[in-house]
Amino acid sequence: MGRVTERRRVIRIRDGAVSTRPDTLVAEEPLEIRLGGKPLAITMRTPGDDFALAAGFLVSEGVLASAGELANIVYCAGATGEGGSNSYNVVDVRLADGVPVPDITLERNVYTTSSCGLCGKASLDAVRTTARWPLDTSPDTPVRIEPATLSALPDRLRAAQRVFERTGGLHAAALFTTDGELLDIREDVGRHNAVDKIVGRALQQGQLPLSSCVLMVSGRASFELVQKAVMAGIPVLAAVSAPSSLAVDLAVETGLTLVGFLRGTSMNVYAGEHRLALSAAASTG
Amino acid sequence: MGRVTERRRVIRIRDGAVSTRPDTLVAEEPLEIRLGGKPLAITMRTPGDDFALAAGFLVSEGVLASAGELANIVYCAGATGEGGSNSYNVVDVRLADGVPVPDITLERNVYTTSSCGLCGKASLDAVRTTARWPLDTSPDTPVRIEPATLSALPDRLRAAQRVFERTGGLHAAALFTTDGELLDIREDVGRHNAVDKIVGRALQQGQLPLSSCVLMVSGRASFELVQKAVMAGIPVLAAVSAPSSLAVDLAVETGLTLVGFLRGTSMNVYAGEHRLALSAAASTG
Repeated sequence: MGRVTERRRVIRIRDGAVSTRPDTLVAEEPLEIRLGGKPLAITMRTPGDDFALAAGFLVSEGVLASAGELANIVYCAGATGEGGSNSYNVVDVRLADGVPVPDITLERNVYTTSSCGLCGKASLDAVRTTARWPLDTSPDTPVRIEPATLSALPDRLRAAQRVFERTGGLHAAALFTTDGELLDIREDVGRHNAVDKIVGRALQQGQLPLSSCVLMVSGRASFELVQKAVMAGIPVLAAVSAPSSLAVDLAVETGLTLVGFLRGTSMNVYAGEHRLALSAAASTG
Repeated sequence: MGRVTERRRVIRIRDGAVSTRPDTLVAEEPLEIRLGGKPLAITMRTPGDDFALAAGFLVSEGVLASAGELANIVYCAGATGEGGSNSYNVVDVRLADGVPVPDITLERNVYTTSSCGLCGKASLDAVRTTARWPLDTSPDTPVRIEPATLSALPDRLRAAQRVFERTGGLHAAALFTTDGELLDIREDVGRHNAVDKIVGRALQQGQLPLSSCVLMVSGRASFELVQKAVMAGIPVLAAVSAPSSLAVDLAVETGLTLVGFLRGTSMNVYAGEHRLALSAAASTG
């Protein structure tokens, strides 16, 4: 499929120097797995080996155990994305005659099952249309943050990670003010859970939307994490590691400031640079 | 709840020296989120802040946007686990009067929805009873692996990660023989997808069960990854980082050899040490 990586524009900040260049990101797209035509699961994945992914998923769930139990796997012919071409994001698995179709109620995160044409664009639209607090995309946005403030966040996150100290096995999400003050931190085996705990706590305390906050996560920035930030009205998401292509696309579409590879005085800005206080004189790009 | 971490026995190997000691692991348990009594989603999470997690999840999905839309959240009273006590793994969210209950079809990985008493034990049982190829738990198992062979795997995994080189944003899973020969490697934004692709490819080629193979993953070892290894008949799972408590429990219950923190000549063995060729003379524990 040749869609394992995608190119996006990135603003690099290195020791105060700012430059713009293309960057290679890992591709992320939804895949809907159907069993005998019936939607079964949706997972966010890197395109490629989709038939193997569907077959392996069904092995894990106890449906398949041998090649003989599998009739075939096809891309759903009606699954057309933008422009009417096949989205290659919907596969249908057909079991061999006599293999029992299980009574399965399992599904993964489903953002939309409205049509056969599941594609990244549909995922973006689903978030944009349900977000209650549109982010401010104006160059005169009142929410601004200094790169130096961002650079201080990873150490503060790590210092506040009490459980990680003891187990080495945890993701963390933390909420900061735009001045870098720590407001909340949650740890969990699942990165998305840590973010849900942050947002849920804020809702319970009547603090939504979190429109003057920065969300920091300990690992990568996936589509799902950008979605969660946008839905909570958080304007800035910073991650220690890389974002995916769809995470960047959603940030661009919604106006979220997305920072990745935040390490030391270096960072990459993938979207929403209008909130970063960048010195024009320092720009080399 | 006080269940953020749990203690398990671990065999430590450091430069050939073997010792046994207790280790602290991050806790992992399923949480079922219900909306008005109706099961909505199940996620594997670290216990604690469960009401915030449920509320935040519903913010992300566009159901909740303010504290006023939330009536209350309770642990399901009938959700009794082992011994008849509340499992504290099922929460019910009730919306305020007048807040529309969405037509939601989304669910996360559901291993069992059979009863109210969702607990880690139920998750373990679900895997054990559906696994088609029970792993060999005999001390005389024909599948044995040298610690030195395991120590060589991380470098081979990294060397074969073509996409990670360019993006820094990917998980990887690789299949090796017990002699350390690389059989297959897959990369994906989702660790579980990378494993599904490995297993699905093997199924398509008629190679299941993978009963003389080692599965290596680039990050942590969660319950879900142990499940996938067991369902494919893979006897050894090695991870660069930490396992969760439930991952260890499932490995112990099924006889899987689970190795974590595999770095240089160091590693921790959490279960299934009968497959490791450990020198008795070197044991100090």
